[in-house]
Amino acid sequence: MSNLSATSLRYDVDGLSILDQRLLPSELVWHRCTTANQLIGHIHSLAVRGAPLIGLAAALMVAWRARQGIQGAALLAELEALRASRPTAVNLMNYLDRLSASIHSGASAEQIEQLAVQLFEEDRDLCQRMADHAQTLIPSGARILTHCNTGSLATAGIGTALGAITEAHRRGKGISVWVDETRPLLQGGRLTTWELAQAEVPYRLICDNMAASLMAKGEVDLIMVGADRIARNGDFANKVGTYSLAVLARAHDIPFYVVAPVTTVDLNCPSGDTIPIEQRAAEEVRGVSLPERSLIWSPEQAEVYNPAFDVTPARLISGWVLDTGVMLERFIPSQAGAE
Amino acid sequence: MSNLSATSLRYDVDGLSILDQRLLPSELVWHRCTTANQLIGHIHSLAVRGAPLIGLAAALMVAWRARQGIQGAALLAELEALRASRPTAVNLMNYLDRLSASIHSGASAEQIEQLAVQLFEEDRDLCQRMADHAQTLIPSGARILTHCNTGSLATAGIGTALGAITEAHRRGKGISVWVDETRPLLQGGRLTTWELAQAEVPYRLICDNMAASLMAKGEVDLIMVGADRIARNGDFANKVGTYSLAVLARAHDIPFYVVAPVTTVDLNCPSGDTIPIEQRAAEEVRGVSLPERSLIWSPEQAEVYNPAFDVTPARLISGWVLDTGVMLERFIPSQAGAE
Repeated sequence: MSNLSATSLRYDVDGLSILDQRLLPSELVWHRCTTANQLIGHIHSLAVRGAPLIGLAAALMVAWRARQGIQGAALLAELEALRASRPTAVNLMNYLDRLSASIHSGASAEQIEQLAVQLFEEDRDLCQRMADHAQTLIPSGARILTHCNTGSLATAGIGTALGAITEAHRRGKGISVWVDETRPLLQGGRLTTWELAQAEVPYRLICDNMAASLMAKGEVDLIMVGADRIARNGDFANKVGTYSLAVLARAHDIPFYVVAPVTTVDLNCPSGDTIPIEQRAAEEVRGVSLPERSLIWSPEQAEVYNPAFDVTPARLISGWVLDTGVMLERFIPSQAGAE
Repeated sequence: MSNLSATSLRYDVDGLSILDQRLLPSELVWHRCTTANQLIGHIHSLAVRGAPLIGLAAALMVAWRARQGIQGAALLAELEALRASRPTAVNLMNYLDRLSASIHSGASAEQIEQLAVQLFEEDRDLCQRMADHAQTLIPSGARILTHCNTGSLATAGIGTALGAITEAHRRGKGISVWVDETRPLLQGGRLTTWELAQAEVPYRLICDNMAASLMAKGEVDLIMVGADRIARNGDFANKVGTYSLAVLARAHDIPFYVVAPVTTVDLNCPSGDTIPIEQRAAEEVRGVSLPERSLIWSPEQAEVYNPAFDVTPARLISGWVLDTGVMLERFIPSQAGAE
C-alpha cells in the first residue's frame, strides 16, 4: 500500500482525500472520498478540478474500490460512471482506459492499485519534463500571461503551464506573471494567485477583459496556458477564455503556447470541432457560486450562456510544450527564441 | 424651476437626487445631493455612472448651488472640483465648460439653471437621434453583443448603444442581445440585464471571456458599445474590455460600432494615446466591491492592475453612430447594410 501526496490529493490506507478547491484560498478543507459517487459529486461541483488531477483522482478511486473488494463488472460500472463525470477533459478517459484494460485482463486489486500509483508518479514526472522543455521559450525577465489554474493544484506534480512558469522563477530568470482571474469560477483569482504567492513569484491579477489592453501596451511577452484536450490536428480545448487570448495574442504578435502532457492528447479526436463542451449552471454567471462565498448580483431570472471550455484552433498556437519536447508549428517571434 | 426626471436622476425644488447604481438590480435607493462634494463622492464610488449622466448630474449640481446663492469664484471652484471627479469621461468637461462660460459672463442663478436644464433636454434628444440613425446598421433578427451599460441609466434619455438596441426591439426587428457582464463592476450583469428585462428584449448574459467563442461560432452579428471620450482621429476610450471586443470583432469579420453623442467627442484630443485612463482600487478585482454585496475571493494581499477604461483605435471601428448621423470609415460587411 503506497502513500501518495500532492498539493490537492492524498491517497493512503484510509482511502482518497481531496482538497476542496472551491474554498481556496480562504480555507483548506480536505474531503475523504470512499465511493465513486462521492468523487463524482466533487468533480461536478469543481471541488476537484484540473484535467490531470481529475484523471488521477478517478484512477485512485478505482484502485481504492478494488481494495474494498469491488471487482469485475461492478468495478467497471463505477469506472464508467467516473469517466462520464467531466466530458471535456481527456486525461480522465486515458487513465481510465488503462485501468479498464487491466481489470478486463483479470488484474488483482494490488495490481490495479499499482497501476494507479504508477499513473500518479508518471504525472509528477511529466510535469517536471514539460517545465524543463518550456524553458527554451521563456526569456529572462519575461512577463507571462496565464489563464485559469494549471499548477500543483491541478496535477500530481508542479503543474503544466504554471509549473513551467514557477520553474523559470526557480531558475532565477526574474519573470513576472499576469494572472487572468478566469470568470466565472475564478481559478486564476483564487488559485493561481495563491500558488504564485506561495512560490514568491511576482504577479498581478487582472480581470479577463483587461488582457487585450496590456498586450497593446507591450506589457505581455508571451502567453502560456494548459489544456483539457488536444486533438490530433493540434486544436485544443481549455477553460473558457483561452480562445480569446489566442486571437488577441496573434493580433499583437505575441507567442501563445499550450503546455500539456501527452496524456492530454486525444489521437481519436481529429479536430477541435468534435470535442464536447460542457455547459454549466446559470448561477455561476449570475454571480459568484462558491460554497460559503455565494452572491447573486444579476436579476435572479437572468438568462445565461455558460460554456465551461472553448476550443483554440492549431493555427493560433505558436508551440505545444509536451513532456516529450516542444513542437513549434508556426512562426515564433524573435524574443521567444532568446535565452 | 423645472422638474426633471430620468431613470437614474431627478431634479426638482429640493435639489438633485441620484439612483444608486451600485445597488441595482436588488435595491432602488435614491440619494439626495445638496453639495458638490456629496455628488463627487457618488461619482467616485460609481453610485452615479455613465459618461452623459455624470456630466448632467454635475451640471445640475452647479445649477442647484447657484440657486442656493453660491456665485462667482466660489461657484467656479465647486465646478472645477466636479470636473476633476472622472478624468476619462469628456461629457463632464463639455457640459461644465458651457456652464463655466455662462458663470464667467455673469449669468443669474435662473439663467445657469436654465442652461443645465437645456443640457438635460438636449441629451434626451441626442439619444433618440442616435437610436434613429443606428437603425440602418441593425438588420432584422440581429444578435447584438454589447458591453457595460449604455442605456437609460447612463443618460437622460433612452441611452447610447443600448438605446439603439432597445429602439430596434421597439421597431419589431426581433433582435436579441449578448450582454458582457463587464468585470469588475458588473454594469452589464447588473444594469444592462435589468434594463433589457424591463424592456422585454431577449438577452443572454455571458462572462467577458466568452464573447470570442460566440464570435467563432457565428453567434454574433454586430457589436455596439458606448464611449467615454472620442478623440479627433476617431480613437475612443470606453469601459475596460471594449478594446478586446474590437480586436476580436475584426478577427471574426464582425462589424463593431460605437454609439455616442457629439458631446462625447473631444476635438482637443488628437488621438487615443492622450486620453487619461483612471486606475481604480485593488479590492474591485480581488472580489466584488459593491455596497452590501462585497466579497473577496483572492488572497487579501493580491497585487492587482485595474484600469477602468481602455482605448480602441479608429482602425478597428466599422462606424461611429453620432446624433448627427453615421460615419462609416472602413468596410462594412454586407449583413450590416441590410434591413
